[in-house]
Order: sequence, then C-alpha cells, then structure tokens
Amino acid sequence: MHAYRSHSCAELTSAEVGQTVRLSGWVNRVRDHGGVLFIDLRDHYGMTQVLCDPDSPVFADVEKVRSEWCIRIDGEVKARDADLVNPKIPTGQIEVFIRDMEVLGASKELPLMVFGDQEYPEETRLKYRYLDLRREAMQENMKLRSDVVASIRKRMWDNDFREYQTPIITASSPEGARDFLVPSRLHPGKFYALPQAPQQFKQLIMVSGYDKYFQIAPCFRDEDPRADRSPTDFYQLDMEMSFVEQQDVFDTIAPVIAGVFEEFGGGRKVDAPAEWEQISYRDAALWYGSDKPDLRNPIKMQVVSDHFRGSGFAIFAKLLEQDGTEVRAIPAPTGGSRKFCDRMNAYAQKEGLPGMGYIFWREKTADAVAQELGITVKEAQAKLKSGEVEGGMEAAGPLAKNIGPERTEAIRQQLGLGLGDAAFFLGGKPKTFEAIAGRARNVIGAELGLIDEDRFAFAWIVDFPIYERDEETGEIDFEHNPFSMPQGGMDALKGDPEDVLGYQYDLACNGYELVSGAIRNHRPEIMFKAFEIAGYGADQVEKRFGGMVNAFQYGAPPHGGCAAGIDRIVMLLADAENIREVIMFPMNQRAEDLMMGAPSEPMNEQLRELRLRVLPPED
Amino acid sequence: MHAYRSHSCAELTSAEVGQTVRLSGWVNRVRDHGGVLFIDLRDHYGMTQVLCDPDSPVFADVEKVRSEWCIRIDGEVKARDADLVNPKIPTGQIEVFIRDMEVLGASKELPLMVFGDQEYPEETRLKYRYLDLRREAMQENMKLRSDVVASIRKRMWDNDFREYQTPIITASSPEGARDFLVPSRLHPGKFYALPQAPQQFKQLIMVSGYDKYFQIAPCFRDEDPRADRSPTDFYQLDMEMSFVEQQDVFDTIAPVIAGVFEEFGGGRKVDAPAEWEQISYRDAALWYGSDKPDLRNPIKMQVVSDHFRGSGFAIFAKLLEQDGTEVRAIPAPTGGSRKFCDRMNAYAQKEGLPGMGYIFWREKTADAVAQELGITVKEAQAKLKSGEVEGGMEAAGPLAKNIGPERTEAIRQQLGLGLGDAAFFLGGKPKTFEAIAGRARNVIGAELGLIDEDRFAFAWIVDFPIYERDEETGEIDFEHNPFSMPQGGMDALKGDPEDVLGYQYDLACNGYELVSGAIRNHRPEIMFKAFEIAGYGADQVEKRFGGMVNAFQYGAPPHGGCAAGIDRIVMLLADAENIREVIMFPMNQRAEDLMMGAPSEPMNEQLRELRLRVLPPED
Repeated sequence: MHAYRSHSCAELTSAEVGQTVRLSGWVNRVRDHGGVLFIDLRDHYGMTQVLCDPDSPVFADVEKVRSEWCIRIDGEVKARDADLVNPKIPTGQIEVFIRDMEVLGASKELPLMVFGDQEYPEETRLKYRYLDLRREAMQENMKLRSDVVASIRKRMWDNDFREYQTPIITASSPEGARDFLVPSRLHPGKFYALPQAPQQFKQLIMVSGYDKYFQIAPCFRDEDPRADRSPTDFYQLDMEMSFVEQQDVFDTIAPVIAGVFEEFGGGRKVDAPAEWEQISYRDAALWYGSDKPDLRNPIKMQVVSDHFRGSGFAIFAKLLEQDGTEVRAIPAPTGGSRKFCDRMNAYAQKEGLPGMGYIFWREKTADAVAQELGITVKEAQAKLKSGEVEGGMEAAGPLAKNIGPERTEAIRQQLGLGLGDAAFFLGGKPKTFEAIAGRARNVIGAELGLIDEDRFAFAWIVDFPIYERDEETGEIDFEHNPFSMPQGGMDALKGDPEDVLGYQYDLACNGYELVSGAIRNHRPEIMFKAFEIAGYGADQVEKRFGGMVNAFQYGAPPHGGCAAGIDRIVMLLADAENIREVIMFPMNQRAEDLMMGAPSEPMNEQLRELRLRVLPPED
Repeated sequence: MHAYRSHSCAELTSAEVGQTVRLSGWVNRVRDHGGVLFIDLRDHYGMTQVLCDPDSPVFADVEKVRSEWCIRIDGEVKARDADLVNPKIPTGQIEVFIRDMEVLGASKELPLMVFGDQEYPEETRLKYRYLDLRREAMQENMKLRSDVVASIRKRMWDNDFREYQTPIITASSPEGARDFLVPSRLHPGKFYALPQAPQQFKQLIMVSGYDKYFQIAPCFRDEDPRADRSPTDFYQLDMEMSFVEQQDVFDTIAPVIAGVFEEFGGGRKVDAPAEWEQISYRDAALWYGSDKPDLRNPIKMQVVSDHFRGSGFAIFAKLLEQDGTEVRAIPAPTGGSRKFCDRMNAYAQKEGLPGMGYIFWREKTADAVAQELGITVKEAQAKLKSGEVEGGMEAAGPLAKNIGPERTEAIRQQLGLGLGDAAFFLGGKPKTFEAIAGRARNVIGAELGLIDEDRFAFAWIVDFPIYERDEETGEIDFEHNPFSMPQGGMDALKGDPEDVLGYQYDLACNGYELVSGAIRNHRPEIMFKAFEIAGYGADQVEKRFGGMVNAFQYGAPPHGGCAAGIDRIVMLLADAENIREVIMFPMNQRAEDLMMGAPSEPMNEQLRELRLRVLPPED
C-alpha cells in the first residue's frame, strides 16, 4: 500500500465498503459521541468521516489529536446506517473505522479556526495565511483563480497566440506609477527597474515580427495600497497583435473575456460580445459620469441645460450664463418619494456639493388640489374621492416650483419619466461634478434596486483624448500613456491638442476597468511630434523610451493590443470585495508580508556589495 | 477588405489564382530581373513572392523599398510558370502582381541582415535584438520555447496540478546564490528580495493543503553570468506534491519531461522513463565523475586500485599507501592507438594533472616478438608472417611495462576491453581528480565518436549527502539546500553527518542537470536538529526561514517536489550552445541590456524617496 493514501478524502463510496483503505489529511473536527470519536478528515479534495471506539488498537492515540493535525489512518470502509447517510458530500454513504494511525504533523494551538465561517482580522489571516488558505472559501477562490488563468491561456492559444516571456529585471517601462528599483551589484550605483507592464517589450516583439503575442505577465508598480490594487506585483493578461485596427483587437479579445465569464460566472448572465456597446469617452462621462460605467444600472444622465436657462431657478439660470457650464439630470426611475430624494440630496452634500436639486412625480395630493382651487384640504379630499377633480400625477420638489409646470413637464418628457419616478440635477462645469454625478448614479441605482446583480455588463469605452490640460498649470500632458496612435495621424497633431482623440480603449464591466489598450503609434515621426506637444524633446524621448523608438526606425508594423487585470477578473467572478481574497500570499495594506518578514533590514555586506548607504530619516 | 491583409504570407496557393489579395509583411529581399522587381514578402507565417514591372501604377514606389521595410501590397494572384514553381514553400505555386503599395514602416540602413546566415557579434545581435529576432533561426527558437512551455502546462494540468502564482517582491528565499534586493519606499531602509526560487512559498502551499502545485515560475539570482545561466531572471517549472515519497515524484514528473522531449525532440531517441536508471550520487561520481553524467557516452569508470597496489608502477603503488586514495580507470573502447593516448594525456596535463597513465591493446608487433624471443626484428617479421609465432593482442604503453603482463591482463579483463581499446588511469583522493576524470570521460567519448548525438539519455541521481565538510575549515555545512528530509529521519542525524543521505535527487540529461528536487523535511524538530548540525541556532533558523518553520508547527503534511530549468530544456531541444539563443531579450555577459539601457543611473528623486545614497568606489 502507498505510504500515505490509497484514496483521497473525496473518493470513497459504498462501492468500497469492506475494503481496508489508507487516508491522509487534516482533522477538520473531532466529536466525541458517547465514547466514540468521530473525525471529519479533510484533504484538498473533500472530507471523509473516520471514527474510532475503544476497540481500536489506536484509540488512545486518536484521543490526542486535535483540529488541523495532519494524520494518516488505516481502516475499514463501513456503510453508514441509512439514517446517518449524508447526501451532501460524495463520501456521505460511508465511514472508515480507524485501525491504525500516524501523526504526520501535529499542530500548536490555532490562532484561527479552519472549519466554520468565523471572521478574523486581516492581520491574523495574513500572518497565518497557511491556515487561512485551508478554509473552504479560500480554497475555492484559489482554485478559481488558477482555473481562470488556465482557461485564458487555452483561449489565447486557440486564437493562435503564443506566450512569450519578457524580462523582469530590466529598464524602466513607465506606465504612470513609480518604478521599483533593483540595485546592480556588477554595476554599483546603477539600478535596474521592474517593469510596470511589458509595454515596450511587447511592442518590440511586434517589431520583431512575431505577429501575435500574449503573456500572463507579472507587473510591478510601487503604488500606495488600496482594496482593488496590489501594492507590489500583480498579473495581467497582456496581448499585442500586428497589422490590426481597433476593431480587430475587440473582435479577438471580447470572446476570450466573455468566454471566461460564461465559464466561471456561475450562471450569471454575460452580455454577448456582439451586444457590447462602443461608447465614446465623452459620452461615458456625460451619460454615466465615469469611464468605467456600471451598465447593469439602467440610469443614463442627460443634458437638460435648456430647461433651466432663464428659468425661475436662479442658481442654475445664473450658472448657465457662464461659458462651459451645463445642467445635467440623473433620472431615478421608481425614486419618486420625498424621503428618497432628501436622502440622495444629503448624500450629495456629504460628497461636498451644496446639494442636488430634484423633482419627483407623485399622485396629486389633496394639499395640491386645495392650493390650486383655493379650497380647504378637506374639500379637496372630497372632490378627489368623488372624482369631481381628477387626480393623476404631479411634480413635486422645490425645483419644480421654481421653474414652473411647463419646464418641469418638458424635463419629464425628455427624461421619459412618469409617476413614481424622480430626477436629480447637477450644474456647473462638467469636470467639477461629473465624478460625483457618476457616484450618485451608482448610489441611486443601488438604493432603488435597479442593478441586476446577476449580470456581467460590458461596454467598450473608445475615443479617449490623447492629451489633457493641467487645470492649474495650463500645460498639456498625456492623458494616459504616450504610445497610442492619434486618430488622424500627423494631421490631427497640427490642431488643438485637446481635440486629439486616440485609438485607445477600455473595456468596462460592472463598474470596473477590466481591459485597457490601444492601437500604438508605430511611426517615429508622429511619435516625436506627439511627445513634442506634451513638452518632451527628442532627447528625453530617446532617454526614456530609446529601446522602442530606435526599433521603430527599422520597419515597424502597425500594431495594437491590450491588457486585462487578472486579479480584477477573478474578484468579479468570485464576488470578492478585496483583491487579497483572490491572491494567495498578498501584502498587507502597508505593503508588508508579516508572515515572511518582508521588507526587512539588509545585511551590511549586501549594502556594501551594492555600494549603498541608507540615510537617516529627515526630520 | 481588411486594412492590412486578406491573407498571411504563407497562405496563398493555386486555389487563389485570379483573386485580388492584400498582404502585409517585411521585404526579405528585393531582386531586379531585367526591370522586373521581385520581392520576397515575409511575415511571421511564411513568405510570398510579389512582383512588379513598369506596368504597375506603383512601380516607382516599389523601386524605393529596401530589405526590412514593412509594406502592405494589393495585387492579383498569378500562377507561376511550371519551371518557376518552388515546391519547398507552401506559396511556391503562385506569385502576386503588385497593383498598390503602402509603406507601413520604412527602415534605416541595417546593422545586421535578417535574411541569410551571416554571423554577427553578440553585442550587435543584442543591441538590435528586434532585427536579430526576425531571423529564421530565432523565430524557430522562440516558437519552440513558447510551445514547450505550453506543452508543459498542459501536461501538468492533465496530471491534476493547478498553477498558483507566488509573490515576486517578497522576502529572501535563499538557494545558495545572492539575492536581488528591492528597496522599499514605504519603509525606507528596509528591502524586499526577489525569490531565488519559490521554495518556501511552494512548501507553504502544501502546508495550506493544496496537494498539487506547479508554476512556470520566474526566479532571480544575482550570479555572475555564464553560457548556460541567465545573470538575472530565468524560469523554472516548479512543482510540489503532498503525501508523497520520492518515487511518486519521479513517477509524476518523468512522463512530463519525457513527453516534452518526445514531442519536440525532432525524432531524436528519448529514453523511456521506465528505463531511467537511479544512480546514487556516490556511484555517479565514481562511474562518471559527475552528478550530471552524459549517459549517451557508454564509458563507465571503475576502481582498479588492487591491480596497482604493490606493483612496479611506483607512483600509484606509493599513493595507495595513503588513506583514502584510489586508482580509477577510464576505459576507452576503440581508443587503442599511441597517438590518441598521447593526446588524452596532453589533455590531462592541460587540465592541471601531471598526466594520465594509459595502457592500450594492439596487434602484436614484430618489435615486441623480437624482444620477447631475443631475435632480430626481421626474423620476427618472418616468423609472424609464416605463422610460426602467433600474433594477436599485446598491451602497450609505459604503465603496462611497469606493472607487468599479469596485472595488465587482469585490468583488461576487469574493464572488459580488447584489441584496439585503451584505458586511462588516475589516482589520488577521489575528490582531487573526480571532476577532471569526468571531463576526460567526456572528451574521450566525444573524440572516439562513442556518443549517440541523436539521443536524450536520462538518469535520476539519488541519495545526495545532506552535508559536506569544508576541506579547509573542517566545518560541516549543507551540501545543497537545507530543506531535504534526511533518510532515516531524526535517528540518522545522530550519527556522522557526512554519512547522512537525503531524499534529494537530480535528473541528468545529456550532461545537464535538468531537474532538481527533494522530499522535504516537514518536521520542525528534525529541521532544527539538521540546522544545528550545520551550525545554525534556532534563532538563525527563525530569522532566515521563519515563515516556513512557523507554518510547520500547524499540521504540516509530508511533501516533496522538484524544479526543472525551462531554459535548459529548450536549449537541449533547440540544440543551442548558449542560453541567449532561447531567451527573447537576454542580458549580455555583463548583465546589461544595451538595447533598453539597463541598468542605469537612478534619478536623485528616486534615491531620495528610498533614502539611499550611492557611495563612491573604494580604491
């Protein structure tokens, strides 16, 4: 017999009754029922009930084992009594009577329990990650992650992509975050950098003629930690193709992403790629207040400036006299109650706005009828009851009063709202309130239960501007990364930089940016011009991106691609709120690994070899 | 029509004759045949001949293109004349007459040619790697590497292994080389380390109950460069299993390795795993002078001390009076000529030995007969010719004379040699000459053509000693890594440390160490004892391996695994001599990337954020 097991803990059924078997695993729980010891023995695959009474030659030893001891047992498979059969687990028909036992690894007292759902502070979970990872939810998350990555690979291979590995200890490949540096021992005083993404290398691979590249690529950004971002290293599905236009990239990657969500989405609805809208960056900002909108939320904002221009609502009317201002409405279907509207208004105030004006549409009240007809409320109630006065819908809220019924009705019709609905209004220069409007849209959608939680809703966000003007300095800089091809090529760069759009795109899913990519600027002359506009001279371009720019002088093909965050995909599929639930050994929020003791003080000898000195803190 | 191509450059056959097609690719070569321009247009998939004469509207533009320009052409597919058909390429039946052309990327003058087999200095190849990578041999090597890695993954999945990613920016995980350090910005003065291998993490994954783990894992060792080693990062197939013994690991990984060699070996013979010998470390040293023997070479060394003890060959006879000395023979079948033996002797002298004694067996010469019978050489020739004296075999060489015919014959019989063969002899303490003997074995096998070049020959090297004694200091230290389980467990550690063998193993293939692994020491008490023997106190163990050792206190399962070098596997399959032939963007021999400019001087601001100062060189 094998030294440790004849079967896994998920394998035995009534077919093995009568056999002598050997199992190894962890003691999930021990229960003592009237002198009989029942152990749920657990391994990676499942659980088997093993038991022992004083007839067993090893009863005294079995009495000593505790939860999370790793043991090996030999015993006979017995059928359970019919009333003790557990149909929920594959091994529920049998139990194993222990004849021999070996303690493979005992355990000290546990800082966290593996069985059950007790919550523990994250520091405890990370410090004892090897125990935390034994818990069922974590086992499922890690298996999911592994299976998702495997599925992505298979799908990319099926699309004739090959995976090529790019260097990790290399030169800086800036993507807008800080580099991690690695001091060189052979060249003291010089440093390597860990790549923020394999951006330059994948473009070099295209220049090298490899046509289709992908990599599940480790990326490194020295960023301050937050819930959906690893503070050190993380993985991307990175891909690039030659001789393609934007739509080719979409047609290639969309079925891969959709396929993975179909495969692992647990039956949640996945929008088919053919239905994925292409929304311009500017429309996304207007409609959703975000370049990564959650399209499960049906709310779409609209410009309603005209209804407020010269209206009785002085705040908006005055505002609209300034250049570049707008009033936008957030429709809130089914939000038509004062209580809800006031709560949303309070939310906006908490977010730092003076408030959100609102209108809501409700059944006409006796109060309103009384006021309208100059009668008492009691009289009005009677008339409404008798049908002498027609009830129906009325618009309520301070804004409606200020702008009057005609404008109110025009707004209602534009927004397609009706009885029981509401609308919120924000005004000013769009940049000052767009993000807040987007968050308000999320909150409104969530509070009103408008979001279909069982759906993955995708859209391409396209036509990103290449440049943005710094509000403070007035200077032009790249909006995202400087490698995208401007729509219209060199000609486009001769006009107003703020009007230049790039072949640059994101894929939004349920409020997350899942994929980001571009058709690259592969023409050196256009690239130098594009950098010049952002204030970078040719010498700086050579210095920062020399490897790639030089390569473009030797017959570069048109190419483009994208990258998708693995952690985020798995988070969405696992329905996890925190990236650390889908990473095996994550850093904590201070970028430390307390289990392994990283980072730590170097040895003096190491610093000497690197010719480095650590300076004392400045006060 | 698609913006860049209707077909790849490997697709068109006579089936498309008459169609208008669009192709994109690189100009491999341009030839001018009497005013007609022929271009071999190349993409990742193949080559298509396109042509153009002054009838084409774009003739003037086509005249300007040069090798490695990236172009797009439109044209009509035409059948080639029967005598111009090229059966060697899939598109050899057709050519495309150019009607339109677009230059997608022009090229400056080329520092290296892509077509043809011209050799270039490695510095040129690495600086212009994007051109070098376009060459056919490199395209094939990179595709091979990608396909090998993909095949390994599929085979591991088929064996129910899941791939789990372990941290890259983490704590030191020493494997005997130097760590690369990464300074922490959030914790100035502290450093992360890049893992030399995911050793501790994969063991933690076993403690976490994941049963079967693998990873195509990036590893980082700050080592001085050499031909078969990357000076920075490289990839391993890293795997680990729980509840296993050594043979289980062999039975799992051997079919994976053999399968990959079968799949990509190009028809070379692959030893079946069932035939892979298990050779102890000590036997390997004796028989092959190496723990990674090339078993395609049939030569097996033997101890022949007894034949020299008290013999007339004073050097060996005296030597053997000292403790711990031996004389070993390297049999050299078909090496029986003085010329060959002298050359090998000279080789040994070049390697720093005083020389290698030898004996060779040849047809008896008239000289020898004359001397034996006290007659003239002429008389001896006559007697040999007439058959009056029998010819046959004689042993030649100075050693044979010194030890006399009986001992010489006994040696011949022990070694199983005969007419036309030779044997070389080395003596002393085995450690002083084993490695040289191993190299001599290689040279002898190669020179005599004994090595079957069309074979991959595998063997497991087992029973590695856990400890070795430093010859100079006399101190005991770990021979390899400190995580292996000693054979015999705690009891074994109570005896002479130099006698302790580990469940530790390598897989040798054609003279390379392809795989290395062990059954791990998962028992904390045995681990602390093992470290104590090597002079490490419990506090040091806690400090260096705290993460793992702590984890072992909470129910650790028995486990083991191995790691296989991806670069080496691909090198063997590609028949490459240098690791840089199978890595896309390798560092040069000084650990620099001159294309990307790494390593480089950091910006002052970066150093300030890390609170580091670079010290001036010491003189």
